[in-house]
This record gives sequence, C-alpha cells and structure tokens, in this order.
Amino acid sequence: LFHLTMAIATRFTRRFGLDAPIVSAPMGMLAGGRLAAAVTRAGGLGLIGGGYGNAEWLDQAFADAGNVPVGCGFITWSLARSPDLLDRALARAPTALMLSFGDPAPMAPAIHAAGVPLICQVQSVALARAALDAGAAVIVAQGSEAGGHGGDRGTLTLVPEVADLLAKTSPDTLLLAAGGIVDGRGVAAALMLGADGVLMGSRLLATPEADVPDGFRATILATAGDETVRTAVPDVARGYDWPPGFLARSIRTDFVDEWHGREGALADPATNPRERARYWAGFRSGDAANTVVMAGEGVGLVHSVAPVAEVFAAAVAEAEQLLAGAEARIRR
Amino acid sequence: LFHLTMAIATRFTRRFGLDAPIVSAPMGMLAGGRLAAAVTRAGGLGLIGGGYGNAEWLDQAFADAGNVPVGCGFITWSLARSPDLLDRALARAPTALMLSFGDPAPMAPAIHAAGVPLICQVQSVALARAALDAGAAVIVAQGSEAGGHGGDRGTLTLVPEVADLLAKTSPDTLLLAAGGIVDGRGVAAALMLGADGVLMGSRLLATPEADVPDGFRATILATAGDETVRTAVPDVARGYDWPPGFLARSIRTDFVDEWHGREGALADPATNPRERARYWAGFRSGDAANTVVMAGEGVGLVHSVAPVAEVFAAAVAEAEQLLAGAEARIRR
Repeated sequence: LFHLTMAIATRFTRRFGLDAPIVSAPMGMLAGGRLAAAVTRAGGLGLIGGGYGNAEWLDQAFADAGNVPVGCGFITWSLARSPDLLDRALARAPTALMLSFGDPAPMAPAIHAAGVPLICQVQSVALARAALDAGAAVIVAQGSEAGGHGGDRGTLTLVPEVADLLAKTSPDTLLLAAGGIVDGRGVAAALMLGADGVLMGSRLLATPEADVPDGFRATILATAGDETVRTAVPDVARGYDWPPGFLARSIRTDFVDEWHGREGALADPATNPRERARYWAGFRSGDAANTVVMAGEGVGLVHSVAPVAEVFAAAVAEAEQLLAGAEARIRR
Repeated sequence: LFHLTMAIATRFTRRFGLDAPIVSAPMGMLAGGRLAAAVTRAGGLGLIGGGYGNAEWLDQAFADAGNVPVGCGFITWSLARSPDLLDRALARAPTALMLSFGDPAPMAPAIHAAGVPLICQVQSVALARAALDAGAAVIVAQGSEAGGHGGDRGTLTLVPEVADLLAKTSPDTLLLAAGGIVDGRGVAAALMLGADGVLMGSRLLATPEADVPDGFRATILATAGDETVRTAVPDVARGYDWPPGFLARSIRTDFVDEWHGREGALADPATNPRERARYWAGFRSGDAANTVVMAGEGVGLVHSVAPVAEVFAAAVAEAEQLLAGAEARIRR
C-alpha cells in the first residue's frame, strides 16, 4: 500500500545511498533499534538515540536493529563524561555518528579515525562554525521548533544562514534541517531553504516502532502546536546538569504547567525526590499528565499513529507532489 | 536592470492583482508612504505602518504614497484606544487594513462596512481562530523569527497548522507567512508550507525607501542572525503598555544587552527618564548602540542596502529559480 514509487534525490541521498532525504532524530532512550532500523528500511537513515549514555541500553538498541545498518547519536556534553561509550558505538560500524549539544572537537578524532561520517547538530551559526572546525560531514541546523533540547533560532532562518556559510567556506559539507518537520510540506520547504534533507523527530514518536508508552502517543495526537514550551523542567526534575542555552521543548502537561517558571522550587531537596519519582513513574507508565513528554511544535500536524514506512511514504509522496507542482506557480 | 520578466501567481496575487506574492510589514513609524508605494510599484502590496497611531504621521504617510494604492496596518490594542484613527485610515480607501496584536473583533465591523479587506496577523492557532471569527479575508501567520513584536511559535510549523485550519473551516481565507522571510528561499519555502504569499519586514528596513536613519541600515547589515533577541526592553524603555505574550525581537545592541533581563531596573522612575531620552535620541539619530533596532533573525541573510524594486526582483527571481528546479529533485 505504501511503496515509494518515486524518491527524492539530493546530495545527501546520493552520499548515503538513500531513497528519502530523511534522518530520524536520535531521541535519547526513545529512538531505539527498532525505530532506527524501520527508518533505514523505509529509505531514510535511522539513528539510535544514545542520549546520556548507557552501555546496556546501547547494546540492546544495536541488537534490536539486527543487521539493518543504522547510525547513532549522542548528547555531546554527556558523552564527554563517558568516552568509552563512543568506542562502544564506533565498534558497531554505525552508518553515521551524530553529536549535539556541546563541543564536538574532543570526540571528532576518534570518529574520523573510525571512518564514520560525523553529523553535528547545531542551534546557531556560531555552533555551525565549531562543527566545521571539527570536520563534520553533515551539519544539522536545528530550529527552536524542535522537540527536546534545542536553542532559540528558528528553522526558517537558521537553515539558509548556515547554507550560506557552507557555500562560502565548506561547499562539500551537507546540510539537514531540523525542527518542526513532520510531513512533506516541511521536507519540500527545507529543500527550498537550501537543505539537502531533514531530521524528523516528534513525528516518529507516533509510530509503533518508537520506544514510548502508548500514553505518549495519545498525548502527541491530542496536542496542538500552541501547547508546547521550551523549559528546564524535565532537567531540573531529573537532576540533569545541562549547560546553559539548551532548554527542552515539551508538551504542556500538568507536570510542566505546575513547575515551569518555578524551577527553583522543583530543585529544592524538600521537593525534588518526590517529583523525580513522579516524573519517572509517569514516564515509564505513559501517564503523560504526571511527567514530561518532550515533543516539538510539529505535534499540531500529527494526527495519526502509523508505522514508520507509512509516515515516510506519505511525507515523500506529499513532498514530491509539492515539488512537481512548484513550477506551475510561475506565471510567464 | 531589475524588471520582473516572470511573476509568481497564487490565490493571493490573483485576488489583489499583484505580480509578487509579497506584502510589506506595516512596521510602525518605519514603514511610511514612500516604502509602501515602492512595494506596490514593485508588484507587491505596500502597507503603511500606522503603529501606535498618530494622525499627523498617518496623513503624511498617505500623502507620501501619492496616488499609488497602499494599505495600512495598526497595532490592534493601541488602535482600540484611538478608534478615530481607523476611520481616518479607512477614509483613504486603503487596499487593505491589517490588524495585529489584540482582538480584532471591535474594529472588524467598520472595516467590513468600508468594503476594505481585513488582514489579521496571528501568532498562534488560537489567534487564527479569533481572526476567522472577525471575518479576516487574509491571515498572516507570524513566526517568532520576525522582527518587532511577536509570539513564540516558529514560522515553519505555524504556517501549515493554520493552513490546515483554513482548509477545514474557511477555505476561501488566504494565508501569508511572516517571520524570517527575506529572500526567494523564504518565499519558495512559504509556498511549500501552504501559504499564498509572504509578509516581508526586516529586509525592507535596508532600503532607501524605509523611514530609518542610515545607522539602522548599517546595523542591520552588520548583524548576524544569532544576534537578535525577543525582549521587553524597548517597551519598558518607552513606557508602552503591551499586553502579555508579545515581546519585540530586537538586535542585541549595547542598549539591549545592558537592560535585557533587568527590565525592572529599567522601569524604575529613578532610571527610566534618562534611558527613555537616550532611547529616543539614539532612535532619531540612528545611533544604534544607544537605542533599540527591532529586526528579525533574517538580518543574517541581509547583505546589502538596495531599492525595494531590486529587493523584490531578486527575491522573485530566486523563488522562481527554486520553484522551476523543484521537480528535478524527484528521481523517478
């Protein structure tokens, strides 16, 4: 029913041998081997979400991917504290290794030495320059629309500004757009902005292949785009030590509304253990009201739970229709 | 040198008889009659920036536009305090009347009675619903990338989500994208997202036709997209009583960096008169370091001061090139 009868070709799809210019965001703990493998099978590039790093989880994720080639992504500042995890991932010969949120320079040499393409996600032009210095083969320009951690630039301006930087200083470096891309409209728009492809995150949480409880999927379907916020609440609740400048876009669940703007009280030792237990209990059971569901503004465009293959086929078909009809907009 | 040899046709250009699907943002006090008329002559729809409302300024702006048809935009909550200004503008038979930042319902009947198309700018899906209730003929979905006042949704997600709302509930209402659109890439991307055209603001400050001092133009050229911030500083400095939810994206001049995050101190009666005088002196002389230059993230894509006709011709030509080449992205 959902075959890719056509495909979108960009420098990125040619470099990585793909049918769809779509990479799955390596959402920590949520993007496991099943999701990454499904993305690769659907014609894209699947990435396991190494997140804060957990050797057992990582091994399981690669095992779940089986013999389908997948890559892996890490939170840079966290990986710097567990450098052995990088070797563990590189030993699996990942399709690509993605780093985001921190200075990639210390990890880059090992990744280059392993012959694995380095993907760096950036949230500003300044970070794009640092990614180039680290020898990134692919830069992901992530706008603030994105779910989970990110910065404050918008996708619509960050992508062309990074594209201009690459054109001037490193034309062989590929560019992906991230943040707010959930369907073929976002894919086609990203190509117009100068990207060679896109990163897709929140949309893929509403698939059976994502490692999320059903309550999260239901919450994503029920949430409008106005109902997310960039907040420190999940990090303060969990006691995670994020560097300044990166907040986590999250659905405004009861938990978030209760603590957003009251992070000091949430961090208080008299409160935090109780709320941390509440967070994790809700996270594990899928009781969204009592935890944080990180997701982007694009949730307002997500209206169904569907297998990855179906999501990809629909996005590619919609993008193709828009691209094929684009010339008709010109009145000669 | 810069003739529109082709043009982009959308429902919006057909409805308003335009060659370019581009409306100039009615930037208060900065978008006068010369700018609006130049935009209309360049094939777009030019809007005078009525801003907070000043009868003399408004009369002068319409006089400066001469016999070129232009529209007019107001800050809704401010206009509600000076309803006579609306009649004054409607008496000029504007091409369109745009309202942003507040409930358009009280003003809508007079605008409809005058037979003038109502354009409502919105910063969320919730506000888009209110605009539909007020009978807007055109909705501008403004992303947070935009310069000056705005909300916190990103253009890339807000536009398709409002497009979906219109498709479902009011398919004849037209949709423009605003926020971060400064060149043909932004125009082409907006069309892919489902918009019928775009609103362009910051880019037009770097034209000889804008009512800005040269120092502002130089500052815009020198500013990268990372160097803007959404802030209350200009409103606190001026003593303007903005409703919650709307901050002004501004270039991080010395003045902004000094007071952003210290708005309470800036409002202090012991400080404010001095800083307000400094703000207006810098604003009038173009001494950007000592005032606020409201502009969007798109300034990182602005590299020249050029006449409006040239800006429009370049944007349309670039958009056309992208749209014409779009089908080639599909691999059959």
